[in-house]
Amino acid sequence: MHTAWKDYQKQNEQRFLDEMLELLRIPSVSAKSEHKDDMRKCAELVKQRLLDSGCDKAEVMETAGHPVVYGEKIVDASKPTVLVYGHYDVQPADPLELWHSGPFEPVIKEGKVYARGSADDKGQFYMHVKALETMVKTGDLDTNIKFLIEGEEEVGSPNLGSFVREHKDMLKADVILISDSSMISMENPSLDIGVRGLSYIQVEVTGANRDLHSGTYGGAVANPITLLCKMIADIHDENNHVTIPGFYDDVVEATKEERELMARAPFDEKEYKDELGIKEVWGEKGFTTNERTGIRPTVEANGIWGGYTGEGAKTVLPSKAYAKVSARLVPNQSSDKISKLLIDYFEQNAPEGVTVKAELHHGGEPYMTPIDSKGYRAAAKAIQTTFGKEPVPVRGGGSIPICSILEKELGTKIIFMGFGLDNDNLHSPNEKYNLENYYKGIETIPYFHKFFAVES
Amino acid sequence: MHTAWKDYQKQNEQRFLDEMLELLRIPSVSAKSEHKDDMRKCAELVKQRLLDSGCDKAEVMETAGHPVVYGEKIVDASKPTVLVYGHYDVQPADPLELWHSGPFEPVIKEGKVYARGSADDKGQFYMHVKALETMVKTGDLDTNIKFLIEGEEEVGSPNLGSFVREHKDMLKADVILISDSSMISMENPSLDIGVRGLSYIQVEVTGANRDLHSGTYGGAVANPITLLCKMIADIHDENNHVTIPGFYDDVVEATKEERELMARAPFDEKEYKDELGIKEVWGEKGFTTNERTGIRPTVEANGIWGGYTGEGAKTVLPSKAYAKVSARLVPNQSSDKISKLLIDYFEQNAPEGVTVKAELHHGGEPYMTPIDSKGYRAAAKAIQTTFGKEPVPVRGGGSIPICSILEKELGTKIIFMGFGLDNDNLHSPNEKYNLENYYKGIETIPYFHKFFAVES
Repeated sequence: MHTAWKDYQKQNEQRFLDEMLELLRIPSVSAKSEHKDDMRKCAELVKQRLLDSGCDKAEVMETAGHPVVYGEKIVDASKPTVLVYGHYDVQPADPLELWHSGPFEPVIKEGKVYARGSADDKGQFYMHVKALETMVKTGDLDTNIKFLIEGEEEVGSPNLGSFVREHKDMLKADVILISDSSMISMENPSLDIGVRGLSYIQVEVTGANRDLHSGTYGGAVANPITLLCKMIADIHDENNHVTIPGFYDDVVEATKEERELMARAPFDEKEYKDELGIKEVWGEKGFTTNERTGIRPTVEANGIWGGYTGEGAKTVLPSKAYAKVSARLVPNQSSDKISKLLIDYFEQNAPEGVTVKAELHHGGEPYMTPIDSKGYRAAAKAIQTTFGKEPVPVRGGGSIPICSILEKELGTKIIFMGFGLDNDNLHSPNEKYNLENYYKGIETIPYFHKFFAVES
Repeated sequence: MHTAWKDYQKQNEQRFLDEMLELLRIPSVSAKSEHKDDMRKCAELVKQRLLDSGCDKAEVMETAGHPVVYGEKIVDASKPTVLVYGHYDVQPADPLELWHSGPFEPVIKEGKVYARGSADDKGQFYMHVKALETMVKTGDLDTNIKFLIEGEEEVGSPNLGSFVREHKDMLKADVILISDSSMISMENPSLDIGVRGLSYIQVEVTGANRDLHSGTYGGAVANPITLLCKMIADIHDENNHVTIPGFYDDVVEATKEERELMARAPFDEKEYKDELGIKEVWGEKGFTTNERTGIRPTVEANGIWGGYTGEGAKTVLPSKAYAKVSARLVPNQSSDKISKLLIDYFEQNAPEGVTVKAELHHGGEPYMTPIDSKGYRAAAKAIQTTFGKEPVPVRGGGSIPICSILEKELGTKIIFMGFGLDNDNLHSPNEKYNLENYYKGIETIPYFHKFFAVES
């Protein structure tokens, strides 16, 4: 069987790439209303590709927001069913001026595809589509496969929860498989066993009712920039511990054993710093870099703006200043609760002279998966087969907001089999996905289905 | 003589206004290179107007930056000479979306001209041009008048110092008269006796060498927004006193007498707060609002930006964050010295994990003028004549960077006879200049010349 899959993939290598590039050319930015038509165009293309690749049926299904694409290949109702989740929407491409080539004009350079969405998540979910094609065309498929490819992951999946609730039967499966994360390296394959939760808010600070001359009024009227800065600065104490009361209350502390296991994962701090161009790492005192992104909740300012930001000088005391602030959450923290803490922190700490409004952008719960499930074992064996090395279980720093809802509604565990790398520039200019990883994913995924069918 | 001036002005009222509007229609924004041609167009129009209004000669003169317009009307070498300084450049109009009408499409509403530059300073320097016309056309001019109208005041007059040094003879005068400030109100006319100095810098904070995913890296790599906020927040202590070491070292404290005199100037805090839409005033503990803008040096953040500032959410840990920060200075502080303190404050306090670069935009020295000079007496008598009330001497909060250089190079005191109001929205959206103030200025200025000729 190995040979048939491999031969088929080799013969169709160029087309597998071309099809991914075509997806990448559609600017399906879910956060920006100007891309509404692109979102639908992308959904239609995904549907067509599911049909072309072997699905018995596929459709673009409406939600209150951007549509969901659903597809399925039912081999035999008695066989186990794998639900593949992915998303066809992408992050905004700004700041555009830092891209070396157009974010929606994919370029291949040194074995990497540069484009927004290449790794997150078009390139990754599409591996599953091409894996399906491989298994169908070689007549070697031992599971039923369902696809749930949504269009709102990057804005917190606000409508997917009710979609899933309304389509429980359709989505029923024995395991959920997601490729929307990364591994340590090709030499050190890993499987994520958790994702952090997310609370994302926007803050607006208002001083005077209009922009003022900083000479005439400077020093006598509160400056919203200064006071917003004060509020953001005060979020972390001198040990970079978050000061917001109650922030750590529900955190389940990692055990000594888990921390020891994490410490054994390969990590070269010098290489990490060199690759990022930083002199020092930064973070909460008492924790290692991997712990800071894996087992600790964090708060980051994702954006700030106010006053004059153009060329040259303008002596203005602005009326307003804004920030986007988000927290990453770890098991047992609740996104709703932390969002409320964040909003309260800003609104109730409004310094004298300004008013503060804070509002939720979106959130998502943290999620952990056990390493003794059938799905995890199948994934580990698949990786072992194609990488020749047992994968290390690690906790990922990112968030997939829908995980906890998927598990709750469908009663099924999630397996994270990500083939990206941390340096793929997700959410950043020059996002890329290595061709080697793309093809390795397509090669590995059929083994997951094979082993999962045996385990089940 | 009063009647002749008044009659002439009445007859030409509409034209005086139309000519001002024509000036306002040229977007002469000195800070933005895209307006280079507009700057020259504006200079040429000013020159033509000086000639049309009675100057014997006028020319557009080159500098290393935007040109200067010079004009003169020499009546008799034995008579005293008044040098009028003003500027034809304006502040950037951003944020454009807050303007009720186009910043360069002047609109008259309820007796006010709304346009960028209406009060600062096109509408104000042009009062002097129309005052010249009044005196020339009625044959009643007792002084020589020179005009120095520059194009770089809003960017700190970087080239005017050397221009003045190279043209000392041409600019020689017995007094320098400037209308580029405001009075308390039409009921409480005032004369500025000082302007604050300025130090304006831009700060760039860099963390990682590229934007990062805030999940993958958040909490483990320094966030330049957070650390910039910390540095800005730390500029003021809990009493809103500036903490930068050495900042207050050279400040000449106002005497008890001067503070008592200031306290007598009419000021209604409730009205001030209502007009600005704020619940509380803000500022350095131990000083009144007028003292905070008049006799105290201050530091303001004029702009801040970094990370994602668009619609919706983007979970990015940015590579860079920026701020524009300026200080207003009071007598005896040196702009060079304070600029260096500000730059050092940011560069030498760079927290671990980020690098900080700060650079000077521009600066200007504080300036004070005595109230017992011939010029001040002439201005006070002119105001008394047309307003029917003796003006109060006050210290203005704004800056005119060139003042100290003009005095030093030309050996002549400066008189500030501003006809604007604090609520003219200088440097802000919807800048306006009241028609009443414009005409009152044109009415008052000839008396200054008349009284100055008598005093001299």
